[in-house]
Amino acid sequence: SMNPDLASERQTASFSVEKLTALLDGGAERTRMRRAVVEAIEHDPEFSRENQYFQSQNERYEAAVRKAVHLQKKMHEMGWNENGPEFKYIYRAVAGDVAFLLHRVFMRSISVLGSDKQIAKWIPLATQYQIIGSYAQTELGHGTYLQGLETTAVFDVTTQEFILNTPKVSAMKWWPGDMGRSATHSVVFAQLYIQGKCYGVHPFIVQIRSLQDHSLCPGITAGDIGPKMSFEHADNGFLMLQNVRVPRENMLSKFCEVQPDGTYVKSGSQKINYFTMTTVRISLISDEVITPLMKACTIAIRYSVVRRQSKLKPGEQEAKILDYQTQQEKLLPQLAAAYAFHFINEYLEELYNRSYREIQRKKFDTLPELHAFSSGFKAMVTQCSASAVEICLRACGGHGYSSLSGLPSLYTKILASCIYEGENTILLLQTARFLFKCFMAASSGQAVPPSVAYLAAVKPRKCPAKSKFDFLSPDIYTEAYQHMAARLVSSTATKLQDLVQSGVKEHDAWNQCTVQLAQAAKAHCHYITVKNFAETVAKLETQAGIQKIMKHLCDLFALHGIFSNAGAFLHDGYISGAQMDMVTASYLDLLPVIRKDAVPLVDAFDFTDKNLNSALGSYDGQVYQQLYEWAQKSPTNKQMSPAYEKYLKPLLHNRLSKL
Amino acid sequence: SMNPDLASERQTASFSVEKLTALLDGGAERTRMRRAVVEAIEHDPEFSRENQYFQSQNERYEAAVRKAVHLQKKMHEMGWNENGPEFKYIYRAVAGDVAFLLHRVFMRSISVLGSDKQIAKWIPLATQYQIIGSYAQTELGHGTYLQGLETTAVFDVTTQEFILNTPKVSAMKWWPGDMGRSATHSVVFAQLYIQGKCYGVHPFIVQIRSLQDHSLCPGITAGDIGPKMSFEHADNGFLMLQNVRVPRENMLSKFCEVQPDGTYVKSGSQKINYFTMTTVRISLISDEVITPLMKACTIAIRYSVVRRQSKLKPGEQEAKILDYQTQQEKLLPQLAAAYAFHFINEYLEELYNRSYREIQRKKFDTLPELHAFSSGFKAMVTQCSASAVEICLRACGGHGYSSLSGLPSLYTKILASCIYEGENTILLLQTARFLFKCFMAASSGQAVPPSVAYLAAVKPRKCPAKSKFDFLSPDIYTEAYQHMAARLVSSTATKLQDLVQSGVKEHDAWNQCTVQLAQAAKAHCHYITVKNFAETVAKLETQAGIQKIMKHLCDLFALHGIFSNAGAFLHDGYISGAQMDMVTASYLDLLPVIRKDAVPLVDAFDFTDKNLNSALGSYDGQVYQQLYEWAQKSPTNKQMSPAYEKYLKPLLHNRLSKL
Repeated sequence: SMNPDLASERQTASFSVEKLTALLDGGAERTRMRRAVVEAIEHDPEFSRENQYFQSQNERYEAAVRKAVHLQKKMHEMGWNENGPEFKYIYRAVAGDVAFLLHRVFMRSISVLGSDKQIAKWIPLATQYQIIGSYAQTELGHGTYLQGLETTAVFDVTTQEFILNTPKVSAMKWWPGDMGRSATHSVVFAQLYIQGKCYGVHPFIVQIRSLQDHSLCPGITAGDIGPKMSFEHADNGFLMLQNVRVPRENMLSKFCEVQPDGTYVKSGSQKINYFTMTTVRISLISDEVITPLMKACTIAIRYSVVRRQSKLKPGEQEAKILDYQTQQEKLLPQLAAAYAFHFINEYLEELYNRSYREIQRKKFDTLPELHAFSSGFKAMVTQCSASAVEICLRACGGHGYSSLSGLPSLYTKILASCIYEGENTILLLQTARFLFKCFMAASSGQAVPPSVAYLAAVKPRKCPAKSKFDFLSPDIYTEAYQHMAARLVSSTATKLQDLVQSGVKEHDAWNQCTVQLAQAAKAHCHYITVKNFAETVAKLETQAGIQKIMKHLCDLFALHGIFSNAGAFLHDGYISGAQMDMVTASYLDLLPVIRKDAVPLVDAFDFTDKNLNSALGSYDGQVYQQLYEWAQKSPTNKQMSPAYEKYLKPLLHNRLSKL
Repeated sequence: SMNPDLASERQTASFSVEKLTALLDGGAERTRMRRAVVEAIEHDPEFSRENQYFQSQNERYEAAVRKAVHLQKKMHEMGWNENGPEFKYIYRAVAGDVAFLLHRVFMRSISVLGSDKQIAKWIPLATQYQIIGSYAQTELGHGTYLQGLETTAVFDVTTQEFILNTPKVSAMKWWPGDMGRSATHSVVFAQLYIQGKCYGVHPFIVQIRSLQDHSLCPGITAGDIGPKMSFEHADNGFLMLQNVRVPRENMLSKFCEVQPDGTYVKSGSQKINYFTMTTVRISLISDEVITPLMKACTIAIRYSVVRRQSKLKPGEQEAKILDYQTQQEKLLPQLAAAYAFHFINEYLEELYNRSYREIQRKKFDTLPELHAFSSGFKAMVTQCSASAVEICLRACGGHGYSSLSGLPSLYTKILASCIYEGENTILLLQTARFLFKCFMAASSGQAVPPSVAYLAAVKPRKCPAKSKFDFLSPDIYTEAYQHMAARLVSSTATKLQDLVQSGVKEHDAWNQCTVQLAQAAKAHCHYITVKNFAETVAKLETQAGIQKIMKHLCDLFALHGIFSNAGAFLHDGYISGAQMDMVTASYLDLLPVIRKDAVPLVDAFDFTDKNLNSALGSYDGQVYQQLYEWAQKSPTNKQMSPAYEKYLKPLLHNRLSKL
C-alpha cells in the first residue's frame, strides 16, 4: 500500500513526470528502450541485489563475477551489444554491481592506442571473455603524475622482447580493478628504454595469469589490495613484475612503435596517452556520479515527506520534515545540481564526440581544450556530487546512516570518484593552467576558444539588479558568475605575474598561487554550468510546464551558488550587501516553490525500487515497515552470537531469570 | 627503519614536542599516567586490533564483547576504576572498540535520574556486568523530538505496575546500542499515563532478556538493526514491547514519582530529562570527535611528507606533497581546528562541571545556557571535524580510500557524531533560540550571561586593519568574528520581528528564518572558539616556543574561517575587499610557516602506531611497505575465489596457457 503522505505529493505535480523523464532520456523512444532493458535485467534473478548490504568482500566479488558472466549471455540472448544503444542502460540497470569494468577500459585502451593488427588479435578474445583484461597505470608510489611511473620496459633487440620490471616496492602497480583475482592480461604502463635511453611512458600488453589454471605467470606477483570504503565487488589489485618478457608486438602501437632494430618511430602526439584517461573521465561522470546523485536525491526527498518530526504549528500533527526550511535548503539545491550536472554532462559529451572524430583523423588541436574542460568538470561535478550525497545522507538522520537506506554505499562510491581518474585538485590546476594561458592570449588580442573568450573582458562593473525579482533573470545571474570567474582568473594571473616580476622563480610563484588558481578553475566551471543550464531552459519553450519548473531549478542552482559563495561576488562590490540580501530572499523564496514539485522531480529520474535498493526510498514510501523487514534478514540476527556463551553467560546474574 | 623524509621533519621542530603533549594532557604527570594505561592495554594481546579491517560485523561484535569483558578484569587487576583518573585514557587506548558503551549510559542515567534506592539496587549489578543495560529513547519514527515518542507506559493501580507498549511499527525503539544482542535490561523512555492522563515522557527500567539463558522476556521483540556505515562492533538494536509489565519502583524517580495510589509527584524540573543527553553530548566530543580528528591529521600529515608527487622545481626529484600550497591549505587548517577544538572542549567541560555541581543541589538556572552551548558546540565541532576528516582522507588520494589507511573508519565513525545525540541542525536551532532570547533581553537592557553580552552592542563598524600584518592580531580577528556573529543574530532577529509584525504567524516566521538562524548560531560558536583559542594562547606566556607555534595555529584557524566564509565578513563592509586580500595574504603566508612544524605538531598528539592502526600513518613512515604487508593478510588473498572455477574457467581461452 502507498504511504498517503507520499501519495498526496504526486497529485499536485505542476508538470508531466513522463515528459520530463523523456527529456532526461533524450526522447520517449529512449525511455521505452531503457525501461525494456531495466525490466529484462530486474526480472532475471541472477541480477538480484537483495542481500547486497549483508555480503562480505569475498561474496560481493563472487557475485560480481557471476553477474558479469551472466550478463554476457544475457546480452547475446537479448541481441544487445557493447556498441548498441542499449548498452548504457545495462550498466545503470545493474547499478554498477558487476565485475570486469577495467576489462572494458583494457579493451578501450587497445581500441584507441592499438594498431589494427593488435585490435584484430585482442579485441575478439576480450569480447568473448576468453581473456580478462585490466589496466595498470597507477603505482603504489605514483598516481596522477604519469611521468613519475617507475615500472620499466627495456627493449631486448636480440629476442625482440620487452623486459618488464618493478624496480622497487613503490613501483608496484596498485589499485587496478579486475587485477587482484580476475585478470589474465593487463595493459601495463612502463617507462620504455631502448639501448639505455628512456622514451617515456608507454602501454604494453602483459599476461598475468595462466589461461589453463589461472596461476600467476612466471615473474608475476599479484593479488587483491584488501578492503576499501566501497567497491567490495571490484578486485582492485597489485602487480609486481620481475623480468617479465613480452614480444615486441605487445607494445600498443597506433601512435608509436619500436621497430625490430630498436628504432623508435612516432606517428602521433604523446598527448594521446592521456586520451584514454580523458575518455574514462568523461564516461564516468554520468554513470558513477550523476546517477548516484539522482538516486540519493530520490531517497532523501521521498523519505522527507514520509518522515514527520516536531510541530510546525502548535496543535497540529508533527510536520513532514521537507516542510522545514532547513530541510528544503539541504535537499533542494542538491536536486537542482543533479539537473544542472545532467545538462552539463550532455554538453561535455558533445564536446568529446567532436574531439573524438578529429582524433580519429589524427588531428589533435582540440585535445588541450577537451583535456582542460573534462578535468575541471570532472573535479567540480564529483566534488559537488559527493558533498551533495553526504548532505542527503545526513538529512535522513540516523536512518540515512543505516546501510539499508542505500545512502552509505552511494556516498562511499561517489567519494572515490573525487580521487580516481585524476585527483581533483590536480585536475583543477590543469584547467587553471589552460585558463591562465587563454587569459594571457586573450589579453594580448590572440584568438581563444569561444568558451573562454569572456576572460578578455574583465572590467570593474556593478550588478544592475534593483530588486529580488531581478535575480530571477538568467542574464543577471549568469553575468554575475561570468564576472566573478573572470575576476578570479585575472586577479590570480596578476598575482602570478607580480610574483615573477618581483623575482620569485616561476615554479615557486605558480605554487604560491595554486589555492587561488584552483578557486578560479572551479569558478569557471560553475559559470559554464549555470550558463549551460540557463540556455537549456531557454530551449524548452515548446514544453511550458517543464520549462517553468526547470527555470525554477536553474534559478535555485544559480542563487544557491551565490548565496553559499557570497564572498566571491561581494569582494569587488559587483554585488553589494543590499543586493546579497535580495539574492538570499529570492533564494529562500524559491525553496517552498520547488518543494511542491520535489517528489515529481525525483520520480522523473525513473528509478525502480530494485535499482534504488533503499529501505527509505521506495516508491510506496513504506519506510518503517521496510527497515524492520530488511533488518530482520541481517546475518546479525541469524543466530545467537557465540559471544553470549563465551563471555556473557559466566558473568550475568543468573540466580533469577528476572530481577 | 625510519623513512628519511619523515625523520628530517622531526629535526627542525621549533618547540618541545614533549612539552606540548604535556600541555594537551593537562600536565606531565597526566601524560605519564596516560602512557602507562596505553602500554598496559597495548601489551595485552586481547586488545589487539590487528585484523580489525578484515572482520565482519559478527566478528567485530564478538571481539568487542570479549574486549569489554576482559577490560573489566584488566581494570580490577590494574586497580583502575570507572571514576578514577585513568578511565578516560582507557577508552582512548582501546580506540572505542569495545562493547557496552550504552551500558555506561544506562548506568549514568540511573545515577542521574534514579532515587537513592534505585541507585543502590541497580548500579552494583551493572558495575559487575551481572546485568547489561541499554538506553532506549530513539524510536523508528521519532528522534530528537522527545515529546513525539509513541511508546506508552500505563500505570495499573491494582497491580502497582506500569504496562509498556509499542503501539505501532514507528514506535519501535530503534538504534539503541547494546540492545541488539547483549542487553538484559534497558532504560526505556515512554509516555506515562495515569488514569487516562498523559504526563509526558519518563524513564523506566525494563528487563529485555532472561538472565538464565538470554532468551527474550515475554512481550519483548528485539534484535540487531543490521549493517551501518560504521559501528560494526556495536549491536544497535530494535525493541518492541507488548504489554510488558514492570513494577512501580522501576520508574526512575529522583525528580518525579508515581505514588501507590497513582498520585504524580514532581520534585524537580522536567528539564532534567534532557540532562543525560547533555552529559552524553559533551562527553562524546573529546572521545568520538576530537581524538579521531587528531588521528586523521596525524595520518594525513605524516603521509604527506613521505609521499612525493610531481616536481615543484624542474630538474629536482619529485616533491613531498606537503610542499604544495594546495596540500598545506587542505591539511593545516584541519590541524589548527584540532587544537582549537581541544581548547574549546576544555572550556565546555568546565562549564559543564560548574552546572553539574549546581544541579546536584537541585539548582537548574544554568541548564538553559549549558544546554544551548553544548548543543551548538556539539553541532559545530562534529560538523567541522567530519568535514576535516574527509579532507584528510581525500588528501591522501587513493591510499586514503583504502581501509588500511585507517581514514575510512575514522570518517564513517565521526560522520555518525553529526547525527546521534541530536541532529546538528536541530541543535543549532536550539542554540539560535537561546541567542535570540538573549539578544532580545540584552537589547531591552536585561541581564544576560556574560558570554552573550556582546549581542547587545551591534553597530555599524569597520575593521581597523591597515595591512596584512594587522590580521595577525588576535584583537583584530576576534573583533571581526564578534561583529559578524552579532550582525547575523541581530539581522535575523530583525527579519523575524518584521515577519511577525507583517502578520506572519510566529511559527511560520520562525521557520522562514531557520536557515539564517542556524548560520547565526554557527557564527556564535565559531566566534567563541576563536576567542577561547586566543585567550588560551595568551596564557602560555611561560612557554615561549609553544606559545609561538600555538599563536600561528590560532591565527591560521581564525583567518581560514574568514577566508572560507568571506561573504559573512564582507557583507556589511566591516571587512573591505582590500582587507580581504590582506586576510588571504596573511592566511596563505602562514601555511609554509606552520608546515615546517607540521610533523612535530601531530607527533605531540602522542598516538602509538597500534592506536592509529594505519598503514599510512605510522611513526616510521614506511607507508608502501606496510600497505603491501597488510594487503597480503586480507581474506581476499587467502585462497582462490570460487568464482574462478564456477564462472571464469568455462569461458577462458584455455587451449594455450600463454597467448
